[in-house]
Amino acid sequence: MKSHREYLVYRVPQRMGFVNITRDVEEVLRKSGIQEGLLLCNAMHITASVFINDDEPGLHEDYRRWLEKLAPFNASPDVYHHNRTGEDNGDAHHKRQVMGREVVVAITEGRLDFGPWEQIFYGEFDGRRDKRVMVKIIGE
Amino acid sequence: MKSHREYLVYRVPQRMGFVNITRDVEEVLRKSGIQEGLLLCNAMHITASVFINDDEPGLHEDYRRWLEKLAPFNASPDVYHHNRTGEDNGDAHHKRQVMGREVVVAITEGRLDFGPWEQIFYGEFDGRRDKRVMVKIIGE
Amino acid sequence: MKSHREYLVYRVPQRMGFVNITRDVEEVLRKSGIQEGLLLCNAMHITASVFINDDEPGLHEDYRRWLEKLAPFNASPDVYHHNRTGEDNGDAHHKRQVMGREVVVAITEGRLDFGPWEQIFYGEFDGRRDKRVMVKIIGE
Repeated sequence: MKSHREYLVYRVPQRMGFVNITRDVEEVLRKSGIQEGLLLCNAMHITASVFINDDEPGLHEDYRRWLEKLAPFNASPDVYHHNRTGEDNGDAHHKRQVMGREVVVAITEGRLDFGPWEQIFYGEFDGRRDKRVMVKIIGE
Repeated sequence: MKSHREYLVYRVPQRMGFVNITRDVEEVLRKSGIQEGLLLCNAMHITASVFINDDEPGLHEDYRRWLEKLAPFNASPDVYHHNRTGEDNGDAHHKRQVMGREVVVAITEGRLDFGPWEQIFYGEFDGRRDKRVMVKIIGE
Repeated sequence: MKSHREYLVYRVPQRMGFVNITRDVEEVLRKSGIQEGLLLCNAMHITASVFINDDEPGLHEDYRRWLEKLAPFNASPDVYHHNRTGEDNGDAHHKRQVMGREVVVAITEGRLDFGPWEQIFYGEFDGRRDKRVMVKIIGE
């Protein structure tokens, strides 16, 4: 069994944003040399997500509005208890739960074994600083 | 290490619906001959989910109503920006995020290592055509 | 390839609650002796979650209120069809979908390969009895 681990780093200039990281993950896979196995890709921060969906800007605008409705940004400690710690990102911890922490992807013949529209996204809900994303691959 | 990959195909006649695919996944596992490992099962389409819950029709009716409330179907491009692409399935991309893309299941002694009520479902949110589901198993 | 499987048991005295299980999962990892691989941790009951987020009591209070808003407890079979089965936990099956069933964690050099704030939680939505959590590790 082979294993390979790498961290990727992203900085989203806004509080909320989505970055297509598929090419970066494919590059890690290529370097690993693994042909058959499983690939885990997860946000290492708890106000961010890694998820798979469509690379379509209109959809991402829809996601932003929808997540803002499900868990609105509000810095007040009266709205989010979490903000009593001095943070203002209570909403981001909720948005992250809707979109998920991680994806697990099948590796077949050295490639991400994807449907035609699957792309991997980093979802940021408390941006404006560097955040790490894990890629771990096991197989052979 | 052994690995095994298979695609399953489902066609749900309605826009939204849930299909118990546990038997199909078990059959793939049996064919793989893998006794100890991990099994990944994911939707290969981005308007569909694979999730684990109860095989109870009342619950599925509840899920349909709840998802319709969280992300209502609306073909209008004024409601979902995504529908400006000519699609009408903006809602489906949201419902899929709530229910998730994938499940990872422990394989122990050649079986899905499940709690008493765990069953695997394909969740369709933009049906009426064939859609693929991935099963990838690694182990030995 | 090595594999290791253990069940953990939790009893939450309230209907809804969150338990930090990171230490318990680390202990299972230590016993496995696995240095490089993937760890799956999932709820074995379908009204419970395993998820990764912050160990901050204010956040957990926020999650409780938010989940209660997204899928309110209501024992009536007129509100949740699922409760026509004689159950009163229809809401719990919905809350579990928002928070997720499982996490997959990278194992590197014998440790959970985590960001600085990542902690694993058992999320209970229909408590007051023993519930099992799976830990399955594969690697070498």
